[in-house]
Amino acid sequence: MASPSLISNGGAAGVESVPAPVTGRFASVYSEVQASRIDHALPLPSVLRKPFKVVDGPASSAAGNPEEIAKLFPNVFGQPSALLAPSDSDSGLPEQKLKIGVVLSGGQAPGGHNVISGIFDYLQDRAKGSTMYGFRGGPAGIMKNKYIELTPEYIYPYRNQGGFDMIRSGRDKIESPEQFKQAQETAVKLDLDGLVVIGGDDSNTNACLLAENFTVKNLKTRVIGCPKTIDGDLKCKEVPISFGFDTACKAVKNFMQIYAEMIGNVMIDARSTGKYYHFVRLMGRAASHITLECALQTHPNITIIGEEVAAKKLTLKNVTDHIVNVILKRADLGYNYGVILIPEGLIDFIPEVQQLIAELNEILAHEVVDEDGLWKKKLTSQSLELFDFLPEAIQEQLMLERDPHGNVQVAKIETEKMLIQMVETDLAKRKQEGSYNGHFQGQSHFFGYQGRCGLPTNFDSTYCYALGYAAGALLHSGKTGLISSVGNLDAPVEEWTVGGTALTSLMDVERRHGKFKPVIKKAMVELEGAPFKKFASLRNDWAINNRYISPGGL
Amino acid sequence: MASPSLISNGGAAGVESVPAPVTGRFASVYSEVQASRIDHALPLPSVLRKPFKVVDGPASSAAGNPEEIAKLFPNVFGQPSALLAPSDSDSGLPEQKLKIGVVLSGGQAPGGHNVISGIFDYLQDRAKGSTMYGFRGGPAGIMKNKYIELTPEYIYPYRNQGGFDMIRSGRDKIESPEQFKQAQETAVKLDLDGLVVIGGDDSNTNACLLAENFTVKNLKTRVIGCPKTIDGDLKCKEVPISFGFDTACKAVKNFMQIYAEMIGNVMIDARSTGKYYHFVRLMGRAASHITLECALQTHPNITIIGEEVAAKKLTLKNVTDHIVNVILKRADLGYNYGVILIPEGLIDFIPEVQQLIAELNEILAHEVVDEDGLWKKKLTSQSLELFDFLPEAIQEQLMLERDPHGNVQVAKIETEKMLIQMVETDLAKRKQEGSYNGHFQGQSHFFGYQGRCGLPTNFDSTYCYALGYAAGALLHSGKTGLISSVGNLDAPVEEWTVGGTALTSLMDVERRHGKFKPVIKKAMVELEGAPFKKFASLRNDWAINNRYISPGGL
Repeated sequence: MASPSLISNGGAAGVESVPAPVTGRFASVYSEVQASRIDHALPLPSVLRKPFKVVDGPASSAAGNPEEIAKLFPNVFGQPSALLAPSDSDSGLPEQKLKIGVVLSGGQAPGGHNVISGIFDYLQDRAKGSTMYGFRGGPAGIMKNKYIELTPEYIYPYRNQGGFDMIRSGRDKIESPEQFKQAQETAVKLDLDGLVVIGGDDSNTNACLLAENFTVKNLKTRVIGCPKTIDGDLKCKEVPISFGFDTACKAVKNFMQIYAEMIGNVMIDARSTGKYYHFVRLMGRAASHITLECALQTHPNITIIGEEVAAKKLTLKNVTDHIVNVILKRADLGYNYGVILIPEGLIDFIPEVQQLIAELNEILAHEVVDEDGLWKKKLTSQSLELFDFLPEAIQEQLMLERDPHGNVQVAKIETEKMLIQMVETDLAKRKQEGSYNGHFQGQSHFFGYQGRCGLPTNFDSTYCYALGYAAGALLHSGKTGLISSVGNLDAPVEEWTVGGTALTSLMDVERRHGKFKPVIKKAMVELEGAPFKKFASLRNDWAINNRYISPGGL
Repeated sequence: MASPSLISNGGAAGVESVPAPVTGRFASVYSEVQASRIDHALPLPSVLRKPFKVVDGPASSAAGNPEEIAKLFPNVFGQPSALLAPSDSDSGLPEQKLKIGVVLSGGQAPGGHNVISGIFDYLQDRAKGSTMYGFRGGPAGIMKNKYIELTPEYIYPYRNQGGFDMIRSGRDKIESPEQFKQAQETAVKLDLDGLVVIGGDDSNTNACLLAENFTVKNLKTRVIGCPKTIDGDLKCKEVPISFGFDTACKAVKNFMQIYAEMIGNVMIDARSTGKYYHFVRLMGRAASHITLECALQTHPNITIIGEEVAAKKLTLKNVTDHIVNVILKRADLGYNYGVILIPEGLIDFIPEVQQLIAELNEILAHEVVDEDGLWKKKLTSQSLELFDFLPEAIQEQLMLERDPHGNVQVAKIETEKMLIQMVETDLAKRKQEGSYNGHFQGQSHFFGYQGRCGLPTNFDSTYCYALGYAAGALLHSGKTGLISSVGNLDAPVEEWTVGGTALTSLMDVERRHGKFKPVIKKAMVELEGAPFKKFASLRNDWAINNRYISPGGL
């Protein structure tokens, strides 16, 4: 029976809050901070403020297996990078009204709305009378031709705001011949001159497949990608950073850095109570960039970097031992508290766990799992040992929760809780043996969804706006199969470089189901790179001494 | 075996960060934001800037059962409130060097360091040559005489900073005759003129017991309390707000409001993905002030207020039904997402859950729990029905995890996950019946530790400083058994009122183990109060429409 008890009689009368400037952002209202961001003026790189010409570089290749990439993309492979350069004369670009579509693909990252504003403003500034469509709900919006026409009034309330709610995002892919056909139909129906795909590695690979497909089908629709991922794992020489990453982690003056701020707060909490070990799991499935960056910002006692775990072929027991050893040392110094950062994807980096999961998938697909545990005999001895080492709750998760394809849902495993339990067990044993005298209390945290929808930093706002503006310029110049590239980011904004990079130049192939599949390689934490080396040189100090930094809000 | 693999050879060489201004805050280093806060000048109420006199009000009574309170506190009961008033002449206070101790008691709340700075500065300004001791690790520090002498250099780096790490806090209580004796010994040994206890309702009750005890024992040591709780449940007419509450919830211009910011971010996330219901559990065991305040700030779709649940004697099923009904209505409108706020203490507010737990405690203490579930027959039919209604994981938690006294650890129950499971089950049933057509995916969050250690807002910084300064003035004036009271907080700081309120006037008695025990009644959300009424008049609108506000950082 329904409970009306928590529904007031008062009804929906009298919402007192300030309404949004226009009603575009659904029925939303704005906080002071949000409102103050909307009219924040964004600087453009100087090359985008004046007439420009497109200078092509040398022909490009691929990140690996160029001959296979060339076969997969006969039309767009090998394209030169395009660089925008100042031009004395007019740009030479046609005075043309363009019809441009845009789509957001995958998880949110702060700044997405500004990419769209950037494209839109390019069209307003340089191709007056153009039309822009936003496909709703990700690539599915392209396939189903579900869109809205973007107007200045509609876009306005989203400028410099977090989230992807202007047109929403989605995770569908355009893969099958039928789906490509649907995309072609939409492109033809809307008479699209261009399409901008804002997304991560998979989405940009998809953008390139669309570019190739439209070219083959002789459509006029050109496709440009824009790099977007909060995890920071989509980058190369020409695309030094993906938007969203900055907001999630990097210190930017005068603006909030959500994760680092929260970590800083639990650090003060740890030091104030003196009795908790905070285990903080951070976003980043495939790469540990966020975790590394947050470690450099805040100086936790222990940080696990997935790429290092994989490179050193560490076992789960090695990782646990490492944590326990630091806890023991700290207990000797009288510190029974600390802060530990763990990347979301840790489990994926541990070879033995991958092996165990593969074996379990196999067994569960074909065997009866008996209560007496005879099924366990099907496990290799190494996997059996690992299975028995795992806390019961994790064992259950591995046995029970499968996705529709029969695979373990690794994403659902709460790694931070698993590690707490394993450390607890180990320390209890040592306490019994008399080799540990401290007290241990773990607190688990997952800092995830709070970060990816934050207001973009000034850097992300400006960077995304330039990416969008550049995408407009590339489409206007007739380019296709490129990813919008804004570089020289350490310099002042006016000196930023602007251009496009052949998407195929970022690609390699992977063999799947007997076929070559193009993939943009994820950018992993480089163990020889400066950020990791800096971390590695400091972590022993951070482990024992308390070098916490709390970035705070402002 | 230990794994040295994650320990670098580089060692502790070359920490590059900026060192803290002095080394007092352990070996810490400061972020820019933290550093900029330290020298932030704080205004004082005008009465504290000039000579003042103490004006006593009429004799006080108690919040309930005054005759019992009078018996428990024969010496300090009935004291008038003290109000500081401007004085033309000199303050008339003795030119005396004071020895004052301070202790932090209970969980952290932003601003604690400023109370200490306030006391310290009072002594520097008005009782030159005084000495101040910080008892370390809470009331245990008093009993064990573990303290540090506070100097300007030691205090400096903690000014306007979050956390309680200057002297740490603790949850011990001074209760037994032996413990009171220890406290007396410390007071005598340090020759203390006064002691300031910064804490919540229990700690302030304890402060009053100490005041009474020291008076009975003819010690010169006077005791003043300061109101501190992040939950906002310690307030009365004279103590309109506890510090910490503001930082955790209330909108204060130009400064972060951690919880509201995080809720705002998951709101944008919900709207951007269009597929998650975010269940957010917020701090507040005994009262739902934080949840209500956050709701008023951010306009979630559903907010559960514990006090209302208790007043209406709702069952867990009523609460679940309420959530499900809103989800159904939203699904009809095409919204398969939303944000739901839940107070940490929800379970404590549901009478049937309390009943079930009491029965389980009884059964588990005396009966054998058989695998076939025959033990369940000992439950009353209502409790049995509830038990069977609960998700399996919660059943297990109720059966297994007990504290040393054999009680269920209610605090460990993840209410938000429990509700997600119950809603899931209900919706699955409705889907089968054909009465629900949407899709539901719950995401659970606990916003707790991230909030209580944040940097204090300007308001909390100023308010706490005034509380501390006032505590110094009250001790200097020879007062004991009062709680430092700063009022008229809606006016500019210079107009704030400053004084002390008899702690006994906040008290009632509870009957425990056949004895009367003094307690300061927790301030609950008043269902007839303006904040709840405002919420109640708007929630139907928030439930269906999306009136989200994202306060953002700045």
